[in-house]
Amino acid sequence: MSITGQSFLRAKDVTPEDVQRIFKRATLFKNAYKNEKKMDHLIDASSLGQKVLALVFSEPSTRTRTSFQMAALRLGLRVVLLDNMAVSSMQKGETVADTLRNVAAMKPDVIAARFDEDPEAYEVVETMDIPVINAGIGMYEHPTQSLLDAFTIMENRGKLEGEKVLIVGDVLHSRVANSNLALLKKMGAEVAYCAPSEFHPKHKDWVDIPHFADRDEAVKWATVIMGLRIQRERHASVGNIGLTVASYRDRFRIGGDQLNHFRDDGILLHPGPVNRGVEFSNYVLSDSRCRILDQVTNGVFVRASLLSYILDLEVQEG
Amino acid sequence: MSITGQSFLRAKDVTPEDVQRIFKRATLFKNAYKNEKKMDHLIDASSLGQKVLALVFSEPSTRTRTSFQMAALRLGLRVVLLDNMAVSSMQKGETVADTLRNVAAMKPDVIAARFDEDPEAYEVVETMDIPVINAGIGMYEHPTQSLLDAFTIMENRGKLEGEKVLIVGDVLHSRVANSNLALLKKMGAEVAYCAPSEFHPKHKDWVDIPHFADRDEAVKWATVIMGLRIQRERHASVGNIGLTVASYRDRFRIGGDQLNHFRDDGILLHPGPVNRGVEFSNYVLSDSRCRILDQVTNGVFVRASLLSYILDLEVQEG
Amino acid sequence: MSITGQSFLRAKDVTPEDVQRIFKRATLFKNAYKNEKKMDHLIDASSLGQKVLALVFSEPSTRTRTSFQMAALRLGLRVVLLDNMAVSSMQKGETVADTLRNVAAMKPDVIAARFDEDPEAYEVVETMDIPVINAGIGMYEHPTQSLLDAFTIMENRGKLEGEKVLIVGDVLHSRVANSNLALLKKMGAEVAYCAPSEFHPKHKDWVDIPHFADRDEAVKWATVIMGLRIQRERHASVGNIGLTVASYRDRFRIGGDQLNHFRDDGILLHPGPVNRGVEFSNYVLSDSRCRILDQVTNGVFVRASLLSYILDLEVQEG
Repeated sequence: MSITGQSFLRAKDVTPEDVQRIFKRATLFKNAYKNEKKMDHLIDASSLGQKVLALVFSEPSTRTRTSFQMAALRLGLRVVLLDNMAVSSMQKGETVADTLRNVAAMKPDVIAARFDEDPEAYEVVETMDIPVINAGIGMYEHPTQSLLDAFTIMENRGKLEGEKVLIVGDVLHSRVANSNLALLKKMGAEVAYCAPSEFHPKHKDWVDIPHFADRDEAVKWATVIMGLRIQRERHASVGNIGLTVASYRDRFRIGGDQLNHFRDDGILLHPGPVNRGVEFSNYVLSDSRCRILDQVTNGVFVRASLLSYILDLEVQEG
Repeated sequence: MSITGQSFLRAKDVTPEDVQRIFKRATLFKNAYKNEKKMDHLIDASSLGQKVLALVFSEPSTRTRTSFQMAALRLGLRVVLLDNMAVSSMQKGETVADTLRNVAAMKPDVIAARFDEDPEAYEVVETMDIPVINAGIGMYEHPTQSLLDAFTIMENRGKLEGEKVLIVGDVLHSRVANSNLALLKKMGAEVAYCAPSEFHPKHKDWVDIPHFADRDEAVKWATVIMGLRIQRERHASVGNIGLTVASYRDRFRIGGDQLNHFRDDGILLHPGPVNRGVEFSNYVLSDSRCRILDQVTNGVFVRASLLSYILDLEVQEG
Repeated sequence: MSITGQSFLRAKDVTPEDVQRIFKRATLFKNAYKNEKKMDHLIDASSLGQKVLALVFSEPSTRTRTSFQMAALRLGLRVVLLDNMAVSSMQKGETVADTLRNVAAMKPDVIAARFDEDPEAYEVVETMDIPVINAGIGMYEHPTQSLLDAFTIMENRGKLEGEKVLIVGDVLHSRVANSNLALLKKMGAEVAYCAPSEFHPKHKDWVDIPHFADRDEAVKWATVIMGLRIQRERHASVGNIGLTVASYRDRFRIGGDQLNHFRDDGILLHPGPVNRGVEFSNYVLSDSRCRILDQVTNGVFVRASLLSYILDLEVQEG
């Protein structure tokens, strides 16, 4: 397993073999929880010790933070949380890089971090002797989200190879989209997107990725529809984009009409939180193909699996 | 035990037999702590596993939150906290019900929740497959507080049957009063109240409950005096009630003069935080019959007992 | 061990024998972590139980708070955190002393507390049956910081006896300086300071302590240089001190020029967070004699050792 003891900063850091192993163990953990409501008997207590995960979140992200915390506690790890407020109060006169150096000096066994892009901080992370998991650093990657998305596709569709994943929404500002593109292509899936021109991705990785102008055509093509949050809070930073929520909805919202064109064995995903009625209609959210809450559930087991690999915990794989 | 595996949303959800068993185990826990400063040898580690309590508090309530957290840690449970700030940041565009669905999807073993009344959220809670403990949802119930109050009465007075519990203060806005009324009557105690007309309860459950206009008469009647916090922060929502703190104090504060009429073996309770000099005088707070800090101590052991029942933990009851 | 079961409120509460024992155990913990990445095999699980540390921080101090938390988790303790926000919300109408009484009533095994000076609270702490560790109460003492500073000196210089410790910076407003003075003198070190007149200490303990007007002379004398943070946030309370950062820098900053006069086997310390370029230049921060991140690392092991003594945990000292 190549990422044992290593940082996990980008979706491309893992090989397909890593991904298969992470998924196998996540499935093991999920089944143990489903059948026995616990998974502690799978983990060797002596390799576990009193290991500590430090969560350093200088941007609020309760969803991801709580998922990491649940994953850690299920494994038997202990958690130290430095949230937005804590990081701010730590930083009197310090840079993010200084703060990370200080947290690392306290010698947690692993760090999961989210903070604004900061080139020096990224460099510090790469040289630290404590492994760091990217929990949403900067605007470009959110690799653990792409792992759990891929796991959910695999679980429901049986494979990733050849799957047709349609990404709908604000692709330009989505770190989820970038990490998913990298991971899904590596695993043999096809990716396309459907978005207003204001949200078309500009990064070179997206140059050859097909896009659909018409959502109905797109839905017909797809085996998996992945909605992305319309991140109003990020748009301020790119100026007036001249796109209203109403006009987005008219042309790109996935609603009941679109589902009529969607295959019966397809699935719908969304990283959450959903703006109800904007990306997906309420009708879609209660459709039997919608897997949004399963993504949340899978996030805990996939992150637990990832943590167990990075920390090299001994797990009884039966 | 009827509430094993179940939610605990209202004081009336427990039977007298439940209550007796919860109290017996709480006593066991308290004695173990008092004598040996620990209680972990009473709990079977294999039934415990790596179980997790999720605390979801969208209203600040450090007192109740910390009590649940201490109770959980004493049992050996792990705790994920979603406090006010965390819940807000989770809710971008989501309802309370959505947030609860997401937390439940992460599969904690039990949830303790406090949030403003929200009919949809209540409904969601009732259909979730994770048991939920009401830690102060909405304005109507706070059932774990009534359990610890009843435990404190039992511990000091030896019984609940036939006890005369006088509730003094803002009965109208108190979820503590409602839960206590339901639980105490179920356990055979008599309840009466003494409050300015602005604070008289309006709910039908209170129709036949006697009230005293005169606090001295009330104190003579009671074996237990339960003061309620004058919740200034809630009154805004019911408009100008035309009652000053000074006039409340003149007619309803319990002070040294009132204690002269109170029986020697009676006790005084208050859910806290006390507005010193408003509900009770400083003199009362240092009277030997005052049990307010004992309530705080008992809260931890009663909640530990409740959690152990709901989670069906095996406890050696000797 | 005299502080077992006791509060630790002032540096002078420990004897030199206490200090030696705390340091010996901290070294044991640090070595176990360095060699085996864990220290849980050193602690007897049956003496550990489900013990709980309550961290009560009514002033933000993420650095110290996180260090205590890491120390506790490494030992296998559980932690309840009441931070600034939590304490505020607990205090509706309550004093700090009331809040402490309430936390103590929940029966944690030990409390570490930071709050503004409050004579009644100090008195309450001294009479409580739960041991309390001063994590920076008021403006006068921060004894655990002085323990970790002394440990770092011992580790690098081999002894404390006869060491020449130069404190540079805002001595007047530094609880770190006060606790260090008391502890270092008790351990046989010499202390001197170098600071602008606005920052000269006024407390009687400092009357006979030599000071240097010239930083180059001071640096030549010292074996250890301890920089102190220029605490701009505290100066408001002492009025306009008429000292600009630029003029402080000109006369008191330690930079490359000063290091030329500093002995090769000397070390530089700072309690953090450093105002880069104010107390020390960037050049100094990357000098091989700088031990600031080692202080952070040592803080965790020294606090773990202290907690283990106060809680009387059985540790295999081999």
